[in-house]
Amino acid sequence: MLVLYEAHENAKKVPQLLGCLENELGIRDVVESAGYELVKTANKDPEGSSEVDKHLKEAEVIITTPFWPTYVTRQRIANSPNLKMCITAGVGSDHVDLNAANERKIAVTEVTGSNVQSVAEHAIMTMLVLIRNYTPSHDQALDGRWDIGECAKYEYDLEDKVIATVGAGRIGYKVLERLVAFNPKKLLYYDYQDLPLAAIKKLNDVSKTLNGVDNIVERVEKLEDMVAQSDIVTIHCPLHEKTKGLFNKELISKMKKGAYLVNTARGAIAVKEDIAAAVKSGQLGGYGGDVWDPQPAPKDHPWRSMDNGDGAGNAMTVHVSGTSLDAQARYADGVKSILKSYFTGKHDYRPQDVIVINGDYATKSYGQR
Amino acid sequence: MLVLYEAHENAKKVPQLLGCLENELGIRDVVESAGYELVKTANKDPEGSSEVDKHLKEAEVIITTPFWPTYVTRQRIANSPNLKMCITAGVGSDHVDLNAANERKIAVTEVTGSNVQSVAEHAIMTMLVLIRNYTPSHDQALDGRWDIGECAKYEYDLEDKVIATVGAGRIGYKVLERLVAFNPKKLLYYDYQDLPLAAIKKLNDVSKTLNGVDNIVERVEKLEDMVAQSDIVTIHCPLHEKTKGLFNKELISKMKKGAYLVNTARGAIAVKEDIAAAVKSGQLGGYGGDVWDPQPAPKDHPWRSMDNGDGAGNAMTVHVSGTSLDAQARYADGVKSILKSYFTGKHDYRPQDVIVINGDYATKSYGQR
Repeated sequence: MLVLYEAHENAKKVPQLLGCLENELGIRDVVESAGYELVKTANKDPEGSSEVDKHLKEAEVIITTPFWPTYVTRQRIANSPNLKMCITAGVGSDHVDLNAANERKIAVTEVTGSNVQSVAEHAIMTMLVLIRNYTPSHDQALDGRWDIGECAKYEYDLEDKVIATVGAGRIGYKVLERLVAFNPKKLLYYDYQDLPLAAIKKLNDVSKTLNGVDNIVERVEKLEDMVAQSDIVTIHCPLHEKTKGLFNKELISKMKKGAYLVNTARGAIAVKEDIAAAVKSGQLGGYGGDVWDPQPAPKDHPWRSMDNGDGAGNAMTVHVSGTSLDAQARYADGVKSILKSYFTGKHDYRPQDVIVINGDYATKSYGQR
Repeated sequence: MLVLYEAHENAKKVPQLLGCLENELGIRDVVESAGYELVKTANKDPEGSSEVDKHLKEAEVIITTPFWPTYVTRQRIANSPNLKMCITAGVGSDHVDLNAANERKIAVTEVTGSNVQSVAEHAIMTMLVLIRNYTPSHDQALDGRWDIGECAKYEYDLEDKVIATVGAGRIGYKVLERLVAFNPKKLLYYDYQDLPLAAIKKLNDVSKTLNGVDNIVERVEKLEDMVAQSDIVTIHCPLHEKTKGLFNKELISKMKKGAYLVNTARGAIAVKEDIAAAVKSGQLGGYGGDVWDPQPAPKDHPWRSMDNGDGAGNAMTVHVSGTSLDAQARYADGVKSILKSYFTGKHDYRPQDVIVINGDYATKSYGQR
């Protein structure tokens, strides 16, 4: 069973939109030539009575995506007697109850690395959009106005700022690689493990070459200490029990007043009401990213309407960072590989694609350490 | 005489807004302690009857800014018998008739380097905003929608693209420095001279370190050949007789279909009707930047309303790239230094700040080669 977003007329107009329901990730041949049936739907809500629930009674493999997430809950797993594998077309499998999957020895896989550069780019873009106050300046251009002071009063350079990442895994590190060329004052990271020495050396070498500054990267042990000294904080950790609601009122109050927070990881890592209040009060200079909880975001989600009271500070988009046309080609290929490996019974998946298997976590990054 | 934009109530609220009329670049003390009078106005139009014209009859020094440009035309120079020096608070002195200034031996200076990083950041932001289709995705977030296909159909990664700069001077080179960390397929430049070998080596070294790719930078002799192979073209040359109207229908037709064009240099380097038509037809995937001709842009300037017919492809802002609060501090300092040097009679300006002096061009970059 394949659960993707519908693209309607755009699916035909843009055949590279592989990740939509109509274009099926290009997997129909792989599925049918293995003797399986491909069932597809975008109807995933409400849980219990959706098309997804109907087909889960028979499905052996379910393919979902973070951009239109089917929440594979404990209850749904209980109602899926034949389910053997959940594949995420993209990166991030928090929409699956991993503990419940382990109890049933259901494998959960994703296409690791398929959109790391895409998400890293979206994070850098969001930082620039916020700190350079893009949206109000663009709105002026469209609206026929010309009030430079009104734009410039919230406009800073990214250069010479302290920028911190929560999580320095594949995406977080790509963000650091891109940031170092902007001549930052300092790059900080918070993670459960040190970056490899070679990875740190790379960033320091580039900093020396371009900016004449050594020792640009620093690991900070305590999250509170890191956010207290940062002009921008960007989130690149998975959503799990320990990161849910991490950026709440209390942690935000430890940030520098007017700092920016960027979240392209998962919406539930930040408490939505607390974020909106902090943007309104000016404790946050702005908040941006593309992830929400739940998805699709309801019309009254506070991140849709929040700003600083003066039209600035909101750089939200719908969940698109990891689904550029370039990324869709990569994760469609990755899903095909996983399916082929499953259908042949070899189960020779790329190790980095496996989240849980045979009743256990295959990765430390989901907090099981 | 000081001619700057008015910031009204924002001038008081944000004292770092040094570049507005009310906050006077912080130069009053410098001017008055030298025995001069500081006259200021934002009223620069229409030529002939504005406040600027009235005061030019007596002014010895005029300080203007690109963000609210006073066009110091041949006629105005003829009407300014005492004028000795035009200072640009910022970078880019094309709003002054340099030939007419030379005939009268009026010096023209600017604060070179004061906002190179600011403009480079704006260019990178604009590339990301266009290629990742930010604005339509942000609009969906605000409008209560969730249609991933509608956003993703125009969304690509910046990674692995061919990106070209017209002009590889101070700003163009900073753009290349930042781009190399995004793992481009190729970085091209068009200029009247080669980049220094050390500058090329820097970029190649960083490319090797981060992306494992050598020889990433290439000079292209013919502009037509460069734009024909580029996914993104960004303009970083001054406006002068040879660059005015450079990006016209004919040159745009040589570009790759669907490529993006970014212009943070000067609006008049591109032909406004030709740009708008190319965005509409899809010959350009999008156009963005912050420079217009004239400035302030009239309400009916085609770049205010252009798009690809489907809501995408416009990343214009008003002219703010070089006037972040960080940049304002730098160019306010620079103007003070130039004034002090003038008032003491030493005329020991930083060489890079001098555009024309003693009746001749002091720089090659304005096309006098």
